[in-house]
Amino acid sequence: MNLPTTMKALIQKHEGYSRVPDGSTLESLEPYVEEATLDLPPVTGRQVLVKVGLASINPSDVMFIKGLYGQPRVKGRPAGFEGVGEVVAAGEDAYARSLIGRRVAFATGTTNWGTWAEYAISEAPGCIPIEQGVRDEDAAALIVNPLTALAMFDIVKEEGEKAFVLTAAASQLCKLIMNVAREEGFRPIAIVRRDDQIPILEEAGAAHVLNEKAADFPARLKEVVKAEQPRILLDAVTGPLAAKIFATMGRGARWIIYGRLDDTQTPIPEPGQLIFMQKRIEGFWLTDWMRRAGAERRAGVITEAQKRFRDGRWSTDVTAIVPLADAIARVPGELAKPNGKVFIAP
Amino acid sequence: MNLPTTMKALIQKHEGYSRVPDGSTLESLEPYVEEATLDLPPVTGRQVLVKVGLASINPSDVMFIKGLYGQPRVKGRPAGFEGVGEVVAAGEDAYARSLIGRRVAFATGTTNWGTWAEYAISEAPGCIPIEQGVRDEDAAALIVNPLTALAMFDIVKEEGEKAFVLTAAASQLCKLIMNVAREEGFRPIAIVRRDDQIPILEEAGAAHVLNEKAADFPARLKEVVKAEQPRILLDAVTGPLAAKIFATMGRGARWIIYGRLDDTQTPIPEPGQLIFMQKRIEGFWLTDWMRRAGAERRAGVITEAQKRFRDGRWSTDVTAIVPLADAIARVPGELAKPNGKVFIAP
Repeated sequence: MNLPTTMKALIQKHEGYSRVPDGSTLESLEPYVEEATLDLPPVTGRQVLVKVGLASINPSDVMFIKGLYGQPRVKGRPAGFEGVGEVVAAGEDAYARSLIGRRVAFATGTTNWGTWAEYAISEAPGCIPIEQGVRDEDAAALIVNPLTALAMFDIVKEEGEKAFVLTAAASQLCKLIMNVAREEGFRPIAIVRRDDQIPILEEAGAAHVLNEKAADFPARLKEVVKAEQPRILLDAVTGPLAAKIFATMGRGARWIIYGRLDDTQTPIPEPGQLIFMQKRIEGFWLTDWMRRAGAERRAGVITEAQKRFRDGRWSTDVTAIVPLADAIARVPGELAKPNGKVFIAP
Repeated sequence: MNLPTTMKALIQKHEGYSRVPDGSTLESLEPYVEEATLDLPPVTGRQVLVKVGLASINPSDVMFIKGLYGQPRVKGRPAGFEGVGEVVAAGEDAYARSLIGRRVAFATGTTNWGTWAEYAISEAPGCIPIEQGVRDEDAAALIVNPLTALAMFDIVKEEGEKAFVLTAAASQLCKLIMNVAREEGFRPIAIVRRDDQIPILEEAGAAHVLNEKAADFPARLKEVVKAEQPRILLDAVTGPLAAKIFATMGRGARWIIYGRLDDTQTPIPEPGQLIFMQKRIEGFWLTDWMRRAGAERRAGVITEAQKRFRDGRWSTDVTAIVPLADAIARVPGELAKPNGKVFIAP
């Protein structure tokens, strides 16, 4: 294939981490990224070069460009962790080369060649060949939300308790988890921040929805935890709220952190509970789960996710598809609209 | 056996937990316990009644009577978690009855009939029959320190990395761990608070000793962690110091909390490290380890500990053996002396 020598991209303006606490709301892209033309990057080993079809924008991308995600920024390199596209080049690795010409959902991981660009780099094992009948909009957002949802639910199933707790439960990710959980007879306890989210999440599959801002939240939480005995807390928030929920949970509770919407300090509420109640605190990262889960469980969630999109049980709500050239002007406004996904089309 | 109907004991003056932060230094016993005469308690099921020979005083006892340990106090009941003595009565359980007449090291666990009394209650599985040739002073302090040391070192061995970090490393417990660790070719990194402890701990088996109060502590810690790649942090301190050490450690690090000498808030320093570096935070409690470890590993550490005391490789340093009637007057003064154990003889 004849490839161009240069590409358009939204590149990062800053290096490393920021020390300024901030949330995942994006007022403006301008402080963080700018449009630029870069040489097409070379690929080696297991790397593949993907011609990006659609790039998705996730809360983790926003935290990353702000310097508040768990990976350092690299100035001058494109942002964007996830997308869909066609593999157009590969390193020497045979498996990587076998992907050339395939449509793949992919994550850029730590390659630092992100998806908010005409071309991006992924490790071949981080690419998921997409079956016919799955839309680009679904494939572009397949990894960060749907696979994470199925992998985290896999952990819940393995633990065995039917009830489990989710923070930031109004997210697309949590809705996917609850949807699958309900189908399999599990009982999600959803923690939200607004009363208007309560009926939406009951609809989505929650057995209980608690508003953390309500005056009776601590009492209701205690009551629900006592009745349902959840063992797992799937937490995208951290901070004092998550700590409080964890402290309320019983013996053997596992606080599984996969996001950090609250960037204030996160306390270990009662270290004695780790000692005497066998509680523990751990993290979840899909990339790591994929490495450790074993081929069968991994293939299971990949197949399951695509099946759900093909047969229409799942469908990604699209707020907007924004051309790369318009991204800086339009993305913050589109992200402010609720309940859907914003994509960049390079 | 003819048992008396009453007994002398040091009973607790307070119920539940205290909200006043405090350390494990004991200025005075008077605010917390008083001498009293109680009816001999009845035993049922798997419980055994032990005529206490020697009761040991551990930092966990001090934290407990202050209301700062992970178990609630019960007003009017004797304090003291550990001791040695003769089983003089038992509940209906056959194994419990088989212990009658045996000399046992024992922990009172959550029975609330502590060892600072003429008689105490233990669950039979929490009793360890003591072999001939093991001194009472060694048996009375067998569980909280030696068995914990061997069980924690068992976790280090299972993890596989030769280097590991210990906080409050000048404790008897840590010296025991380092002693065994060195014999087996492991490399303890000892964190202490005073320079005069450095030669003592080098002698005790530490590969590195770092003074957390030294100006260059963060730099030296970073250097040592980089060189030795420890995976496990055995932590009796918690608080910001332990959090800092954990944050400095690399991928896959496990922060194992077994004590809480610093009762200020313990932060999770970088929640992102739990996600992206597969770090985790957990607790260690011997009682729980004994339950889960399986018969073989359990018997292994019990046999090993007694063997080390019998053949003289280990020996408990005794500061004082204080009669129960003198305990309130003398114990705080004896505890203030460094490097040895204080016992109460009921």
